[in-house]
Amino acid sequence: MEFQEVIAHRRDGVGNSQEELEMVAHAAADVARSVPNAPVRDYHLSAWLMAAYLRPLGPEETAWLTVAMADSGERLDLTGLPKPWTDKHSTGGVGDKTSIILLPLLASCGMTIVKMSGRGLGITGGTVDKLESVPGFRMDLTPPELKAQAAKIGLAVTGQTANLVPADKALYALRDVTATVDSVPLIVSSILSKKLAGGAERVILDVKCGSGGFMDDLGKATVLARSLIETGERIGLPVFVSITDMSQPLGRCVGNLLEVKEAAEVLKGAPGRLTELCVRLAGHALVASGLSASEDDGFVRARHALNSGQALGRAEEWFAAQGSTVDVFGHPEKLPVAPVSLLVASPFGPGFVEKVDARVVGQVVLGLGGGREKTSDTIDPTVGVECLKAVGDEVGADEDLFVVHAASDAAAEEAAKHLVEAVKVAKKPAEPIPLVFKTLP
Amino acid sequence: MEFQEVIAHRRDGVGNSQEELEMVAHAAADVARSVPNAPVRDYHLSAWLMAAYLRPLGPEETAWLTVAMADSGERLDLTGLPKPWTDKHSTGGVGDKTSIILLPLLASCGMTIVKMSGRGLGITGGTVDKLESVPGFRMDLTPPELKAQAAKIGLAVTGQTANLVPADKALYALRDVTATVDSVPLIVSSILSKKLAGGAERVILDVKCGSGGFMDDLGKATVLARSLIETGERIGLPVFVSITDMSQPLGRCVGNLLEVKEAAEVLKGAPGRLTELCVRLAGHALVASGLSASEDDGFVRARHALNSGQALGRAEEWFAAQGSTVDVFGHPEKLPVAPVSLLVASPFGPGFVEKVDARVVGQVVLGLGGGREKTSDTIDPTVGVECLKAVGDEVGADEDLFVVHAASDAAAEEAAKHLVEAVKVAKKPAEPIPLVFKTLP
Repeated sequence: MEFQEVIAHRRDGVGNSQEELEMVAHAAADVARSVPNAPVRDYHLSAWLMAAYLRPLGPEETAWLTVAMADSGERLDLTGLPKPWTDKHSTGGVGDKTSIILLPLLASCGMTIVKMSGRGLGITGGTVDKLESVPGFRMDLTPPELKAQAAKIGLAVTGQTANLVPADKALYALRDVTATVDSVPLIVSSILSKKLAGGAERVILDVKCGSGGFMDDLGKATVLARSLIETGERIGLPVFVSITDMSQPLGRCVGNLLEVKEAAEVLKGAPGRLTELCVRLAGHALVASGLSASEDDGFVRARHALNSGQALGRAEEWFAAQGSTVDVFGHPEKLPVAPVSLLVASPFGPGFVEKVDARVVGQVVLGLGGGREKTSDTIDPTVGVECLKAVGDEVGADEDLFVVHAASDAAAEEAAKHLVEAVKVAKKPAEPIPLVFKTLP
Repeated sequence: MEFQEVIAHRRDGVGNSQEELEMVAHAAADVARSVPNAPVRDYHLSAWLMAAYLRPLGPEETAWLTVAMADSGERLDLTGLPKPWTDKHSTGGVGDKTSIILLPLLASCGMTIVKMSGRGLGITGGTVDKLESVPGFRMDLTPPELKAQAAKIGLAVTGQTANLVPADKALYALRDVTATVDSVPLIVSSILSKKLAGGAERVILDVKCGSGGFMDDLGKATVLARSLIETGERIGLPVFVSITDMSQPLGRCVGNLLEVKEAAEVLKGAPGRLTELCVRLAGHALVASGLSASEDDGFVRARHALNSGQALGRAEEWFAAQGSTVDVFGHPEKLPVAPVSLLVASPFGPGFVEKVDARVVGQVVLGLGGGREKTSDTIDPTVGVECLKAVGDEVGADEDLFVVHAASDAAAEEAAKHLVEAVKVAKKPAEPIPLVFKTLP
């Protein structure tokens, strides 16, 4: 069969067979590996992607594509490692450093976690960038290294390697530049193919909902969650979804090293909204993995793991195992800092914070150089924004709203100008925003 | 503006502005010229093309794109050549050698014709391939050469050159491999951008309708014709369309050199269906160009040009001017021939030919090596099929239906096997198929 027919079937809404979707994945892997004279090229794939955007894959097709993508490269085999094997994924948001907290927390509760993480793009940061910003931290572990480390400490994290799901590498890069990102079946196959290839038995998924995430609407987030769960069922990979708030930045810090420091504080017992979210997600993961019989028990165990220092201990082992040359937990002041920091005072009268728009804060951090607009951009790990007030907080006249960490005075001033646009202050306290909107199934 | 936004606007049915369509044409020209580090690449364009296929351009957008494509390269300026300046185009079909007859015929009636022709793809042949199969015939005339030759003999033809409409070169090649060929606005902009860049004052368009052409349905052909005319009006280039039969091969021969020889016979006065079509198309062109006051007068003048030898004389000058080293008209036997020829007898009882399926015959010629399935294929100019019977003809038991001209006995036998599938014989004579279904406007 010619690939043009695969495109034409998608285009005409006839649908693609399993064999055709295997051709798509195979072709994408060839593109990712720059196979010379491959019969199907990136321009064929982008036509198929646009057809798939406008004539979306059905549930069976999504499952076929997901498996075909997972099979496009090496698949990790975790045999020999203690069970349960759990993976955790977030759709990404502004200030989302939950992975850095949750992974050692869950490992300290007895799970084995081998995870591939992604890089950030646009306003959403990536765990790879955050961890790589720690001096010495290696995000290029090979499959044997991952397995060996997970055998020792129950936890290993790597960036996406060329050998794992090469099909996703090519399709993701093409979607990013051809206006075909925002398609539920393509998002689902991208996420779950990596999870399937990663070898876990189940996936805990954090679907972010709000202006700073990929889905800004609860209805759309629910559609994505349901498709993730259904596809997981079809491919034999149970998926558990929490839809969580991303209307304001998650936690206080946005920016790579700032977020690592904040994660360390939570692991050391600091309370707050971010801590509560991690306890909630960890509790659900404990129930899903069969380690807790009830949500309540899960929450209690998760909180204990944080308060007892058990999660912190595991995090210290983890950072050391992956090569960190700075004691992030004992001496966070040894991490590099941006040369300029600037307090941003409230230009509003006294009142209560009604809004801190995650998208605006994310864009400011992008502007400071803390994220990438294109995959080829480089990141300044030290820059970012601290949000001193969250929705519901009281704020006095002239009280400080933000600290900007910037590479120059000019950049800091520019950031400060935009940051105040993220905030609304009202006379009366706003309704608090729920941490978790929904859990499914 | 980022090109992704151009794609997204198309994708969402918002439409593209004139500026956006200029970006499309500009980007396509960069791709055609392999401009290093061009910001927009073939994979961006193919996503846009699929979006344009599924969310078709409106009339205003089609006109904008057409002009932008014409402006993507050099435009011929025919100033100084005698008027009227007429171009002729066919959407292509099986055995369609009308251009080789019509161009010298019209030139001999006083028109100036400077034409860019295309290569064949799939079952439809191309004038470039037919003329290039004549030893010595040059189809690489530069713009100055075209103009100089047209000044001398009123007629010059070239293949598509890199400098004229480079945007079409890239878009056409991408459409061909991404299942986005069959889109009226994209077809119209491809055809008319080349006509606009070619400098003519008006275009005579032959839209082929039937199994051997691009449009196999009169409704669809009419939609294409109307869009060609409307776009022509918007860009200031009057377009005159005849929708003509392509359910059976046009004339007797299919295959490059066989068709050149048949065209020579018509120019020398041979009667038949092909001759009648040329007279009809020429008559319309004479009226459209203001050289005849009525259709009847046009037909009389066209027939006179053929019968008097006036068209033949111009054809001889033309072939000589473009370098032909064989006297195609005086000594056609000097043209190369295929090593094998095989008569194919009717396996049917006596009766009347009801069908000679142009598509089947076209595919057989493709199989013989007389056409290309991919643009990179090379063509054997000598092979082809002579159709000895047309729809309506009486046929005796065992009477010959075809002559196959092939490179080998095996290829000839294979062709013969398929050719009989193209034919239906009935007891009673079939209704004759009209030569011209419609003329518009």
